[in-house]
Amino acid sequence: MIPPYNKRVEALRESPTRAINRVVEQMRKKGLDVIMLSAGEPGVPPPREVRLWLAKALEEESMRLYSYTPSPGFMDLREAIAMDMKELEGVEVSPDQILVVTGGQNAIFSSFAAILEPGDEVIIMDPTYFGYLNILPYFGVKLVPIVSPAETAYQPDVEGIKEAVKRGKTKAIVLVSPDNPTGRLIREDVARAIAEIAQDHGIWIVYDEPYKTLIYEGSHVSFFKLAPENTISLYAFSKDPGIPGWRLGYVYGPAEIVRRIALVSEATTYNPPSVAQYLVLTYLRNREVRRRHIEYFRGVYAYRRDLMVEELRKIEGISFYKPQGSMFVLVDAKEVLARKGLTVSAFADKLLREKHVAVVPGEFFGNSTVWSVRLSFTRESPERIREGVARFGDLLSQT
Amino acid sequence: MIPPYNKRVEALRESPTRAINRVVEQMRKKGLDVIMLSAGEPGVPPPREVRLWLAKALEEESMRLYSYTPSPGFMDLREAIAMDMKELEGVEVSPDQILVVTGGQNAIFSSFAAILEPGDEVIIMDPTYFGYLNILPYFGVKLVPIVSPAETAYQPDVEGIKEAVKRGKTKAIVLVSPDNPTGRLIREDVARAIAEIAQDHGIWIVYDEPYKTLIYEGSHVSFFKLAPENTISLYAFSKDPGIPGWRLGYVYGPAEIVRRIALVSEATTYNPPSVAQYLVLTYLRNREVRRRHIEYFRGVYAYRRDLMVEELRKIEGISFYKPQGSMFVLVDAKEVLARKGLTVSAFADKLLREKHVAVVPGEFFGNSTVWSVRLSFTRESPERIREGVARFGDLLSQT
Repeated sequence: MIPPYNKRVEALRESPTRAINRVVEQMRKKGLDVIMLSAGEPGVPPPREVRLWLAKALEEESMRLYSYTPSPGFMDLREAIAMDMKELEGVEVSPDQILVVTGGQNAIFSSFAAILEPGDEVIIMDPTYFGYLNILPYFGVKLVPIVSPAETAYQPDVEGIKEAVKRGKTKAIVLVSPDNPTGRLIREDVARAIAEIAQDHGIWIVYDEPYKTLIYEGSHVSFFKLAPENTISLYAFSKDPGIPGWRLGYVYGPAEIVRRIALVSEATTYNPPSVAQYLVLTYLRNREVRRRHIEYFRGVYAYRRDLMVEELRKIEGISFYKPQGSMFVLVDAKEVLARKGLTVSAFADKLLREKHVAVVPGEFFGNSTVWSVRLSFTRESPERIREGVARFGDLLSQT
Repeated sequence: MIPPYNKRVEALRESPTRAINRVVEQMRKKGLDVIMLSAGEPGVPPPREVRLWLAKALEEESMRLYSYTPSPGFMDLREAIAMDMKELEGVEVSPDQILVVTGGQNAIFSSFAAILEPGDEVIIMDPTYFGYLNILPYFGVKLVPIVSPAETAYQPDVEGIKEAVKRGKTKAIVLVSPDNPTGRLIREDVARAIAEIAQDHGIWIVYDEPYKTLIYEGSHVSFFKLAPENTISLYAFSKDPGIPGWRLGYVYGPAEIVRRIALVSEATTYNPPSVAQYLVLTYLRNREVRRRHIEYFRGVYAYRRDLMVEELRKIEGISFYKPQGSMFVLVDAKEVLARKGLTVSAFADKLLREKHVAVVPGEFFGNSTVWSVRLSFTRESPERIREGVARFGDLLSQT
């Protein structure tokens, strides 16, 4: 007799970039070269000094690099993170309020597990990062998408949030800045208004800021400063210093909620990977290396963004917002595709199979972007970005 | 207004070794040297050849080591694991049925999330690994401990299991072999009887085997061979090749349940750490290095075990079972402690603070071992094991 499963797990969905990568893998096995404008991956590895430090440490005949670590991460690392935030953002947070976790995904899962109850309402922007749409249904909550469209530069719709909160069932508002998939930064005045709503109604702000050092114009808003008792901030070292596969991030917020998130984090992964903690500790402590690296990758990514934007401007019938931060341009192709009766999914699939360019269809980010595609400008070289966008334009004009 | 929490999270408990480590940390800051017989940590780092390969790869100016990986792990690694199991255990399992995860803890969490529903009964041995006692209440299940005492060499009590299953509410039986904290291997005939019960009643066997290459006498039993449709096997690379902090492990079982466990694993960590995957892939593929390493650490640990056992035999009023595998000796000190009216917790605390030797009190493993302490023989050098056990004996005779 085969034993039964837990049905609730079926509410979870796989990341769309993973499904795309499987197709790409098959294509590569046939010798095909695919231009990857899909995943939110950095193109710049961690600084050489830091990598060489780790290489040296690997030669030691000891267990230092390999042992278990405290489940909230090394205290040294939590202190280094606090110091880094103070210097770069002017945010003062005690190391006790910082929890090191196994990547941004673990930050998301552990935080939601610590606050959400079945039946809660969770406000998300539409569009938003697909990860939220994939995971929130697992917690039995009702998603309340607030359309925040290109026409208002993707700023969260404060009136829409106010309206939704009136039902009295909102447990959390999820915000991403710099944003995935739109690249917009939340404006200070908009942030203030949302912080006030959260404080007035006892609502959590889950603030996802993995791109906070990937800003090309404007500055990063801190919800922790605006609403310290209501904000759970999430960060990942995936983009900066560029170790997405190594799985390291942190959560900070009120001590009491951080303590609970820590229990979930320990239950899911025991401790954040020690090797990644050592690498990041070395990075954050070497302030000169740290500052130089930020300057370096910002320059690299800003150049690629400008190039992608320039190439996209040559294509007729599309529209997009020039991103101020993060890794993406969200391109609206409704005019062309609707006329031809082609869904974005079908178009993206054709683009991958016929033109060998991978992008993410907008339907994964919400209902307001079913005519958009997300293009990442960080992973590929300038020549390949130029080529990828050109093929994208070609297919649009052909279909 | 401060928003509310999810109360269920409070069901989770922190690992007792973490609490001990915090005290040790404070003692070290005062310059005190503590002999660590507490944590289940290896004392042998990964093979030098494998570490040097990784050190070399860190010099590359590419994103190879750092990128996201497929959420079930690299296919190459899943194939290497299948090959390894075939060679070492004669177990034939398809790579599609193997899911690479972020350490043993993630294997446990993801597997339970995929099968358990509130109200289910879960049979555990008493004693068992404290991790199960800490996490299972979170899933809203009823724990059904089956006492499997030293008198029967800690073999799972088949009659007790049969009796518990009669209520018809058992969803899973959790078994660990080689065992933590007792070091016993499950006997083939006992395994067969339990496999039959599971098959007859449609019950999952969650089989935790992270010490399967740390066997000093006897051989490892495979539930996957005995009950392939009912068994979810969990493994961690923490002990072999010795990267507990790096967080890598795997789960294998029926394809359908592995697919569901993968959804939870992706939701909790996105992918298993890439750097650990590369290290282990290099290790498993270099068959000569692999075989030599197993032989090496088995020799080291068997020597330390024999030494610990020899030293323990000099102490009066205690009893223990000589472990056939894993990292631990579970020592029953009831005769001495009960006479003196000292709990094991109080004794362990005294041992740490006065004698600077860390051990884990038996209460964390179940109700049947409240007069025992667990001593690990893998982490410390022979001299320090000898010294640690001597101090343990001294305190016992003094109190």
